[in-house]
Amino acid sequence: MSDEEIRVIYRLETPGDIPGLAAKIASDQSTGTFTDLPGETAEVQARCAARVVQIENLPPTDVPSIPDPGGNGPYRRADVTIAYPLEAVGTDIAALMTITVGGVFAVRGLTGVRVMDIHLPPAWACHPGPQFGIEGSRRLTGVRTGPVIASIIKPSLGLLPGETAEVVRQLCEAGVDFIKDDEKLMSPGYSALDARVRAIMPVIHDHEQKTGKKVMYAFGISSADPDVMMRNHDMVAEAGGNAAVININSIGHGGMTFLRKRSRLCLHAHRNGWDVLTRHPGLGLQFRAYQKIWRLLGVDQFQINGIRAKYWEPDDSFVRAFHDLMQPIFDPGDRPLPVVGSGQWGGQAVETYRRCGRTLDLMYLAGGGVHGHPMGPAAGARAIRQAWDAAAQDVDLAEHARACPELAAALTKWG
Amino acid sequence: MSDEEIRVIYRLETPGDIPGLAAKIASDQSTGTFTDLPGETAEVQARCAARVVQIENLPPTDVPSIPDPGGNGPYRRADVTIAYPLEAVGTDIAALMTITVGGVFAVRGLTGVRVMDIHLPPAWACHPGPQFGIEGSRRLTGVRTGPVIASIIKPSLGLLPGETAEVVRQLCEAGVDFIKDDEKLMSPGYSALDARVRAIMPVIHDHEQKTGKKVMYAFGISSADPDVMMRNHDMVAEAGGNAAVININSIGHGGMTFLRKRSRLCLHAHRNGWDVLTRHPGLGLQFRAYQKIWRLLGVDQFQINGIRAKYWEPDDSFVRAFHDLMQPIFDPGDRPLPVVGSGQWGGQAVETYRRCGRTLDLMYLAGGGVHGHPMGPAAGARAIRQAWDAAAQDVDLAEHARACPELAAALTKWG
Repeated sequence: MSDEEIRVIYRLETPGDIPGLAAKIASDQSTGTFTDLPGETAEVQARCAARVVQIENLPPTDVPSIPDPGGNGPYRRADVTIAYPLEAVGTDIAALMTITVGGVFAVRGLTGVRVMDIHLPPAWACHPGPQFGIEGSRRLTGVRTGPVIASIIKPSLGLLPGETAEVVRQLCEAGVDFIKDDEKLMSPGYSALDARVRAIMPVIHDHEQKTGKKVMYAFGISSADPDVMMRNHDMVAEAGGNAAVININSIGHGGMTFLRKRSRLCLHAHRNGWDVLTRHPGLGLQFRAYQKIWRLLGVDQFQINGIRAKYWEPDDSFVRAFHDLMQPIFDPGDRPLPVVGSGQWGGQAVETYRRCGRTLDLMYLAGGGVHGHPMGPAAGARAIRQAWDAAAQDVDLAEHARACPELAAALTKWG
Repeated sequence: MSDEEIRVIYRLETPGDIPGLAAKIASDQSTGTFTDLPGETAEVQARCAARVVQIENLPPTDVPSIPDPGGNGPYRRADVTIAYPLEAVGTDIAALMTITVGGVFAVRGLTGVRVMDIHLPPAWACHPGPQFGIEGSRRLTGVRTGPVIASIIKPSLGLLPGETAEVVRQLCEAGVDFIKDDEKLMSPGYSALDARVRAIMPVIHDHEQKTGKKVMYAFGISSADPDVMMRNHDMVAEAGGNAAVININSIGHGGMTFLRKRSRLCLHAHRNGWDVLTRHPGLGLQFRAYQKIWRLLGVDQFQINGIRAKYWEPDDSFVRAFHDLMQPIFDPGDRPLPVVGSGQWGGQAVETYRRCGRTLDLMYLAGGGVHGHPMGPAAGARAIRQAWDAAAQDVDLAEHARACPELAAALTKWG
């Protein structure tokens, strides 16, 4: 691959001809339109024309990804690589998304298109990437080895600031390393962010004074208004906080860029809304492509799902996502801390460890799995640490639980 | 509908039970999680719990929108209205998207979900909406009646700034009211925005001096970095420009909010990437819901497709989109100028007029339809005005063309 081009892999599906569709996309997304143009000269094409560099055929399907009333199959499928001149796109993420992603989904004659991967040339290393990432997250939480054990305020919505602070106190005492607002909690009337910061940070400081451990608390600072988001950021930082939850799709590329340039906080990304882009396997964006953009923009901790998540995502897809996050784009420092969450209670630790590269460089996030433990949240957190000990020692969970009553109780309830 | 709630209509599809799925969504998106929580008290629920207020059943389908391997139908379908307390969401668009849209697509047990509409209470009128909209666009272009006739630089990519300025000169002389950069053109190396502004604005000014008519030129100022986008904005404004093309999905809600607060330009929105959210009829977002968000954020001119567009969108869907844009959210001033484009050359004017409320409050945008006219771009622009005259007079196009050689030539080439 040349340093002067961006390569995008599309999974295309069409009742027509794959090479013809691929060529049409390359033309539509660079210099062409629906009719011949006198100005589309050889010079113009040399400067900006995209070109199809590879077509890898896949088995056809009889069921189109997008309904095709009156049409009939077989629907041909292929992974098609298109190279875009760096000169035509530059290094701006808005240009990348518009030229290589956005318009492609509008092209006629296809019944499916999914962006599988985006290969970016070295010029794209100009983007900031994570400020803290794996190392910074470990430094700030003081967790030198093993997974960062994390929990989330539950119920996710509806608690008053003082009630939230009480849950924070319980979770600190339960021994977790990290606590976060639910991604749905930002700054509603009943729990405005400033009131929440004022209620929660004294609990964090108090616990630090008593134990020497500063629990990382990620406040929901997202706003569609970057100015408001920065005020939220500053409020947290000035109160001694060191982390924030950001809903990346809801703030968008612009909000994220703006925040990252000015941020002093560890940015914990929640990707809610991602599912609309990825849930249908023949449409949208593969996580592999999607996560690269947000990592370049500067996500420090990237929340994905987990084994047996409460959401729709199959385990294999989660495992791929984890490996995607572990893969450097340009440099190992551009890797965020993977955050394994959703329906987790420890019972998935062994399988997570075995399938995700046997690494402990991760945050393991349990909401209901801590709060709902039959012996209380402290036992919930202990059960999770016990489960990860078993994973790291390659011991069977049930066997390990014989000496661990908290893990045994979790297994009885959720196993 | 209460002033204290937000109502969202979802088109749900499931092999299971619709009321059960609806209740699960309402719970997941407010106070619940996968296990019972001691803190989910009656007070908490009263403050924040979402509730299902209506279920309108639709005919079931045998083919699931999302593949359901091993499953079987019929897949039940319904339009389900869920009411979210305003207290839980507030008025921030990031909160709205996270709570009522984002997470819903992650819920297990569904094979389809599409956000059909969002009803917002009066508190949401706090958003700025368009600065110029229909009236401002007419004022700035000097087009008091009839459609704003617009063209686009072609080829879309690859021209040097001086070559682009020459195309602008031709289009000004052709008599169009508005010209725009292709949405794919922002600030690449071969045509940096500052060089383009320096080359193009003298042509606009020169034409104004000669004719008294200031053609509106919309420069591609989008950047994923709001600071860069504002510099781009200022560069255009300081050179006497009055419009900009913005790729709304590529800059995101944050970029748009930031820009609108500071903007002196008429903001012409291109929705590239929207198709990934809407092309499958059982998934994603209906344009009706989507466009409300961007109008509240401040889009002045909203590009949609047209009759017989070069893209996938069926005519019925385009007509619905046009009517959506004509519908006030809170106030007639929150309506942007609809921009009808894609594969347009005038031949679609009569049908557009008849099906889109017989209004002339629109911009009619033709790229290839002007540039590719057999008698040259001036004839292309004239042909389009002739076609709109026919539409407004309720005359058949072919009949009208008998006295209009430019329209006749267009009909021969593209009709």
